[in-house]
This record gives sequence, C-alpha cells and structure tokens, in this order.
Amino acid sequence: MKELTLIGIGTGNPDHLTRAGEAAIREAELILIPRKGSEKSDLADLRRTICASVLGPEADDRVLAFDLPVRDASGDYRQGVDSWHDAIALAWSKALETRAASRVALLVWGDPSLYDSSLRIAGRLSPMPKIAVVPGITALQALTAAHAIPLNAINALVVITTGRRLRDDGWPEAASTVAVMLDGECSFTHLDPKGLDIWWGAFLGMENQILLKGPLASMTDQIVRTRQDARARHGWIMDTYLLKRRD
Amino acid sequence: MKELTLIGIGTGNPDHLTRAGEAAIREAELILIPRKGSEKSDLADLRRTICASVLGPEADDRVLAFDLPVRDASGDYRQGVDSWHDAIALAWSKALETRAASRVALLVWGDPSLYDSSLRIAGRLSPMPKIAVVPGITALQALTAAHAIPLNAINALVVITTGRRLRDDGWPEAASTVAVMLDGECSFTHLDPKGLDIWWGAFLGMENQILLKGPLASMTDQIVRTRQDARARHGWIMDTYLLKRRD
Repeated sequence: MKELTLIGIGTGNPDHLTRAGEAAIREAELILIPRKGSEKSDLADLRRTICASVLGPEADDRVLAFDLPVRDASGDYRQGVDSWHDAIALAWSKALETRAASRVALLVWGDPSLYDSSLRIAGRLSPMPKIAVVPGITALQALTAAHAIPLNAINALVVITTGRRLRDDGWPEAASTVAVMLDGECSFTHLDPKGLDIWWGAFLGMENQILLKGPLASMTDQIVRTRQDARARHGWIMDTYLLKRRD
Repeated sequence: MKELTLIGIGTGNPDHLTRAGEAAIREAELILIPRKGSEKSDLADLRRTICASVLGPEADDRVLAFDLPVRDASGDYRQGVDSWHDAIALAWSKALETRAASRVALLVWGDPSLYDSSLRIAGRLSPMPKIAVVPGITALQALTAAHAIPLNAINALVVITTGRRLRDDGWPEAASTVAVMLDGECSFTHLDPKGLDIWWGAFLGMENQILLKGPLASMTDQIVRTRQDARARHGWIMDTYLLKRRD
C-alpha cells in the first residue's frame, strides 16, 4: 500500500513551511505538484523552489508536476465539483503510477483541512493509499498576522465562509467576525457596509503582499480596483479578507 | 522603540515550528515565556526545549520565563478578563524592563490570532512596542490533521466558538460544522447529540496525543471519562474538538 502525505506549505512564503513539512518532503520518494490551468508558471515554480530549498539539487529527480483538469463551471455547482474531483482523482492515479514510489507527498497551498479538496480526492483513489496530513499556515493566519490583529473577539464566535455563500446568504446571523475565502468576485460588495470594517490581503506572506483595511463603506471601491489591477499585472491573484461588525 | 514579535509555536510538537518562527527566535535578543500558574513544569520546559532546538546552549542566556497573574473567575466574565489583561500587561512590562533588549520575542501556543490574548495585551503596553506576528499551527489544524479530515464541507461555512458560548447559546444556526476551543467543561454534553458526530483530540501533535471520534450520542461518556483520566494523570490537559451535523 502506498503512503500519501498531504503537506500544507502555507501561502507562498517558503518560511511558512514547518519542520514537519520539511521532514515530510525529505522522506518522500515522489513529490506531486498538481498544476492548475489557471495558475501562472511563477506559482508552479514556487513549489519547486520550496522543494529545492529542502532537498537541494535532488529535488529535480523527486518532484513531478502534473496538470489538473479544469472544473466545468456551467450547471449545478455541487455536481460540477463532484465530477471535477473524480477527474482529479484520475489525474492523481496516473501520476502515482508513473513511478515505483511507495512514499508519496503532495504539496497543498495553505492547510489541507481548510477549503482544499485534497482529502476528498484522496478518498476516491483506488487502491486507497494510507493518508497522512501535515498542517500548514492558512491564508487566514497569514492575513491576521500581516495585519497584527486577532481573528476572534473575546469569547465570541468566528464564521469562516466562502465568497459564494456570503453573496447568496448575506451576513451570517450572530457573527461579529466573518472570514471569507475562495472569493473571486469581491462578494463583500453585496453586503450593507454599515457598521462593518474590512481587513483585506493579497499575495499574503509573499514579496508582493498587498494589505488594505478600513470601514467597508469607504474601502470597497479601492479594494475592488486594487484587486483588478494586481490580478491583471500578475496574471493571477490569491486573496482573502476578514469582516468585523463594530460594537 | 522596542520590537515585540509574537511567535506562534504550534500545539506542543516542536515540529510545528515554521521556518519564520525559527528565524524570529534566532533574531530575538530576549525571548519571553509567560508561565501560567496552572501549567505544569513539563509545559513550561517544552518551550525552553523549542528555543534550545533553535539556539543551542545560547538559549539559557536569552530566554526569560515569568509568572502570569491568575484570572479572577468570580464576577462578570468580560470584566474579569479585562482586569486580568491589565495585570498581564504589567507583568510583561516588568519582564521587558529587566533586560536592555530592543528585539523581544514572546512564544505563544498555537497562533497569536486565535483565542489568544497576546495581541490585546500588547496593545496595553506603554510605551507601545512595534508589534509583529509570526503565524503558527493552531490546535484546530493539529486536530484535523491528526484525524485526516477536512474542517469544512464543500462550499459550507464553519463556526469556531468557545466552550462557554456553546454551553450558553447552543448549536449555532446555519452551521454544519462547529469547532470548539477553550472548553474546560465538555460543553458538548449540553447539546442534543442527535445527528451530530464528534472528532476530539488532546495533547495534539505531542507524544501522548489522544484521539476519539464517532457519533456524539455514543462518544460523550467515553470522552468525558478519557479527559478526566488524562488530566489527572498529566496534571493539565489541552484539548479541542469538532462537531459535524450529518446530512
């Protein structure tokens, strides 16, 4: 039985890597780097750089990048995600078959537990490998660290949600703090901004990190514009944000 | 002006430390280890061990442990926390004054942004130092990694809350997943267990890690008993859990 270790590598800053992540990279005979069609080569290269920083020149022999299928965005969202995960599992299986390695690692942005599908996809592999997870720094942690703010208010709950849910369902009842991930469409523009503050960040932990914060009412346009410009300049963007309701 | 770096060191496994955390420990002239009265010496020693693993014998000169005041648990909770934070800020100030160091680091369990008061306390220091934050692996991430499960369901929101809120407010509306922290009283016993599954973990990432999971209805007694026994055996316990509503 193969062993598959999902390694959370943080948000693009090689210094987000933990000692456990370094050890897991060293121990793997084969390191898979799934490459999304939408990703620009600098993002794919970054993971090779992280491997090389642990393994040195040996990284070239052990790292295997492979292309992920593209999600069909038409039709039902859940069904589209479902078929996409099947297709990804197939792509993983093919990549796993190319080498006679029994200890395999897969590098995951952020943490494999938070809005990442690797665990669900691993569950579709046949034969099923033995799965281990190495936690990594998430975009939310990189965001709060960069702004030097706490995520939660004292004894208060925190809601983590997606851009899609925020747009469809509005502000979650009873929440004073809402953290939003996977938002390609600035869903905060659909909220009544009254009484809300936003802390936004893109390319968190990386050299080109951008941070903006302030009352949502006065920051909305600036964040939308900054995001558009940065995305056009880099060809891609990874961003996340935190909203807090003022007391 | 002094620089104060809050370093998230994870949940007790030295391998949770990130490269950024290692660098911040190396760069600090003085490393503060706040010691809670309730903590047993093995927990205080663990942080010295982490420093020593980065600095070698030099750690002895740079590390300064100091006692934190104890929170007054009688009276209003928020007011009690408020006075406690004032008292802690005073203890920090005294510790900061003992050495002529300008670059100071403070080691924080988990991540300084999540149910930790260091950022709020740092804001009370006078003169106010320049604050930097190094994110660390939280107990929630150590929990999901150990169980090899995702935190969120696909496109679903996640609520992170405290034991106190879960006990007082019950299950948060609209949540399919609830992560609970700071729960010294097994507040899940106050919920109707029907349709709920629990993933529980104590001493996460450490040698004596304990994991339990299953339907809440059948796991409640076992978790309460296991927690009591482990706490009696070690003199302290750090635990956290995740609840999911079955579809």
